[in-house]
Amino acid sequence: MSKYWSPSIQSLVPYTPGEQPQVEGLIKLNTNENPYPPAPGVARALRDFETDRLRLYPDPESAQLKQALARNTGLECDQIFVGNGSDEVLALTFMALLRQDKPLLLPETTYSFYNVYIDLYGIQARHVPLTDDFRIDLSQYRQPNGGIIFANPNAPTGISVPLDDIRSLLESTPDSVVVVDEAYVDFGAESATALVNEYPNLLVTQTFSKSRSLAGLRIGCAFGHKDLIEALERVKNSFNSYPLDMLAEAAAIASLEDEAYFNDCIERVIATRQWTTEALNRLGFEVLPSHTNFVFAAHANLTGAELMAYLRENKILVRHFTKPGIENHLRISIGTDAEMRALIDCLKQHPQMAD
Amino acid sequence: MSKYWSPSIQSLVPYTPGEQPQVEGLIKLNTNENPYPPAPGVARALRDFETDRLRLYPDPESAQLKQALARNTGLECDQIFVGNGSDEVLALTFMALLRQDKPLLLPETTYSFYNVYIDLYGIQARHVPLTDDFRIDLSQYRQPNGGIIFANPNAPTGISVPLDDIRSLLESTPDSVVVVDEAYVDFGAESATALVNEYPNLLVTQTFSKSRSLAGLRIGCAFGHKDLIEALERVKNSFNSYPLDMLAEAAAIASLEDEAYFNDCIERVIATRQWTTEALNRLGFEVLPSHTNFVFAAHANLTGAELMAYLRENKILVRHFTKPGIENHLRISIGTDAEMRALIDCLKQHPQMAD
Repeated sequence: MSKYWSPSIQSLVPYTPGEQPQVEGLIKLNTNENPYPPAPGVARALRDFETDRLRLYPDPESAQLKQALARNTGLECDQIFVGNGSDEVLALTFMALLRQDKPLLLPETTYSFYNVYIDLYGIQARHVPLTDDFRIDLSQYRQPNGGIIFANPNAPTGISVPLDDIRSLLESTPDSVVVVDEAYVDFGAESATALVNEYPNLLVTQTFSKSRSLAGLRIGCAFGHKDLIEALERVKNSFNSYPLDMLAEAAAIASLEDEAYFNDCIERVIATRQWTTEALNRLGFEVLPSHTNFVFAAHANLTGAELMAYLRENKILVRHFTKPGIENHLRISIGTDAEMRALIDCLKQHPQMAD
Repeated sequence: MSKYWSPSIQSLVPYTPGEQPQVEGLIKLNTNENPYPPAPGVARALRDFETDRLRLYPDPESAQLKQALARNTGLECDQIFVGNGSDEVLALTFMALLRQDKPLLLPETTYSFYNVYIDLYGIQARHVPLTDDFRIDLSQYRQPNGGIIFANPNAPTGISVPLDDIRSLLESTPDSVVVVDEAYVDFGAESATALVNEYPNLLVTQTFSKSRSLAGLRIGCAFGHKDLIEALERVKNSFNSYPLDMLAEAAAIASLEDEAYFNDCIERVIATRQWTTEALNRLGFEVLPSHTNFVFAAHANLTGAELMAYLRENKILVRHFTKPGIENHLRISIGTDAEMRALIDCLKQHPQMAD
């Protein structure tokens, strides 16, 4: 704290991202990174990029990437926004659309960055509890609101809601914006992008960090009615005209051009998730039904903190949240088959583990 | 405008960046890009980068880049902040440090993005006129204030203020933050980074876009007392944990490692600026004394709008601002010698041009 700080930031509690240790030999299952490399075309696009062009500013509109996303989704370019990772897209969304007079509705347990944005912008919010089995029940969001945001699948639970429930929600709240954060949607959930042409109050955000293995390049996007996208463009152009750099744009386009590779990686992650879930069940874990590249699991006899410390000692990083209600769960990213075998083998060594 | 927008953004007027036309054969002197490519080490760093690592998140602290900047400046890592271009660094600075109860002081004519941030965050501001010869007179900033920001050298005038004047200003306003935006400082002005260890209320921002030819990769930084840097880190971590991507960080580090190339490019730009200024003078232009990679020039017989249109017809892009007081000036980026010869030759062809 310092007398020089803006008063509004004195009480700010920033988001804490998962650790990015610069240590070799760790099995890193703590930040939901994809275990497989980006599409081979990404390496080619970067290798072929003329470095001399970096002296120029990027296209502030990222038009070529929007065109590639338009081909990919069937939407128009003016229904598409891109930014420096989906966190930036979300930060701009909160500013552009969710700072309203009525309270924002969001799940009590969800991506914890939402509450940071709420504090940053001084947004009034109402938190809706999950069901006892950790699901988002969208029927509970039918109350006066200045906007609704949730992750689908939800984080850190991994559970998704069906598209029909989202459709009903959109119809029940036509005067406010519903933001569906689909960071993990490619791993088995239904995308609400299919509803963008029908509902002017729907904004869907996605990321290239997880399913497209490009976390290191920071590419996020949003899909919605052109009026919602215009709001995001206005705020982006009032914040940073060129959020997406030339290499990130080139890599993103190359990734979108290889759907076969994309689908193959997804299938592999889902297959690994399947057997990992079964193996964890056999060890006495309750594992929530995941449509993501992670599982959220709690053990009958051991606390989340105990398990995380035990795994850490054995050079395996997982994520643990101290929030009441989920403090006994671990969020375990789906790595390669070898990494998940190492995880299961390590857990089997624990003296209190059944198998 | 839409009923879904946050009320606060309905009246926002975004910043308009210079055109980035996707047309071949234009001479582009409108966005102050460096005419020379990035250091050769940048191409090597990008070529040697293992693309597979892009599946991982970057280091949210960008520690290696901060270390390189620490070596470069003699400052400590906790006195250094990095972001996605200096526009993002400035956007976070306005949020973290300049949203105060008292008015922010800034020049009436300066980088026009400052006024966009002022609107975006609802900051109260007082604009101080330039002198009749377009200089910033820092003695006029000795009045109650909640912060001061100016560009040094100033944009779009190109004129710099001496370090002693900045020192006096810092001493006259010990309770508020003075932000010196040094986007162009490397082209001949004195950097206030030399004062960072002395004044806890000084924040200096810089960019890799101009003097380091990396506009395409979006890298900005700030230097100041660790308490000011902490404020920026808090806001950054409440907005986007990973603003700088892996390739941008690698390129920035490679650029910092080649000071000989850096100095050579700077010298070439300054030499070209010198003869271009003389040639423009001979054509009847008044050219302000520039310490940047552009010149700000007005012609005795022709308006800025006329000249811009004439050059545009001849495939030469320059920047023109319609703001009263500078509406007859053109901002002309310093390109290669060949580009500037083409500019001068083109101007000579104008029927109303003396030579």
